[in-house]
Amino acid sequence: MAYDDQNIFARILRGELPAFKVYEDEQVLAFMDVMPQAEGHTLVIPKTPAVTLLDLDPEAAAYTIQIVQKVAKAIEKALDVKGIVLMQLSGAAAGQTVPHVHFHLIPTSVHELGKHAAKMGDMEQIKAIGEKIKAAL
Amino acid sequence: MAYDDQNIFARILRGELPAFKVYEDEQVLAFMDVMPQAEGHTLVIPKTPAVTLLDLDPEAAAYTIQIVQKVAKAIEKALDVKGIVLMQLSGAAAGQTVPHVHFHLIPTSVHELGKHAAKMGDMEQIKAIGEKIKAAL
Repeated sequence: MAYDDQNIFARILRGELPAFKVYEDEQVLAFMDVMPQAEGHTLVIPKTPAVTLLDLDPEAAAYTIQIVQKVAKAIEKALDVKGIVLMQLSGAAAGQTVPHVHFHLIPTSVHELGKHAAKMGDMEQIKAIGEKIKAAL
Repeated sequence: MAYDDQNIFARILRGELPAFKVYEDEQVLAFMDVMPQAEGHTLVIPKTPAVTLLDLDPEAAAYTIQIVQKVAKAIEKALDVKGIVLMQLSGAAAGQTVPHVHFHLIPTSVHELGKHAAKMGDMEQIKAIGEKIKAAL
């Protein structure tokens, strides 16, 4: 699939849209999901343009999963949670909505996922949780 | 969490239990899930002992995700599917049942997950699907 550089994550990466960032380096960005499936729902994305995990440069995938590990540990520490669901959807048929590869880190049980309607969260609360996670990194 | 070397994936890695293997090298094993959430449901595990992704050696995580990419591509090719859900559960509180870190590759929509009761699949069918995926690798 061709990469559309107007997708919202590409725009966040260019600074055209705001995000509650918890981690950023030259290759990866982690930020809070504004439609959280659970408190602490965080997204980790490579800066390399790619639609799905299947398209992503393997070196970028290798680096990104290591940042996923770091951010997951920070979520556990910051929010005192025990379980984290990592989810990554490749393709619209899988339920992918933003066409830039992204890893979801959701501190919840897989059995609780999808029970809530997708809606915008409370921005002040999301910001505060993001700050806790950032501080734990 | 301490690693229990009697978990079923450790036993599969030691050859004490059978598995429909689709890929194996010195560091990683991929095999069919025998309780598939969708046709083609495959598991990818590092051989390094670790309970969760958070415990896993970062080098092993980096290598494993690259094999996840390869296997995902093979699933797409072999089964002619368009969407793949990658899921990895860290911790019993997330729904993890086998205490050896594993990545699920499920060719389905996230919206379809969890709708089916967990039960053993048809072994002949799973074997045949595994052989198709192996052939596409």
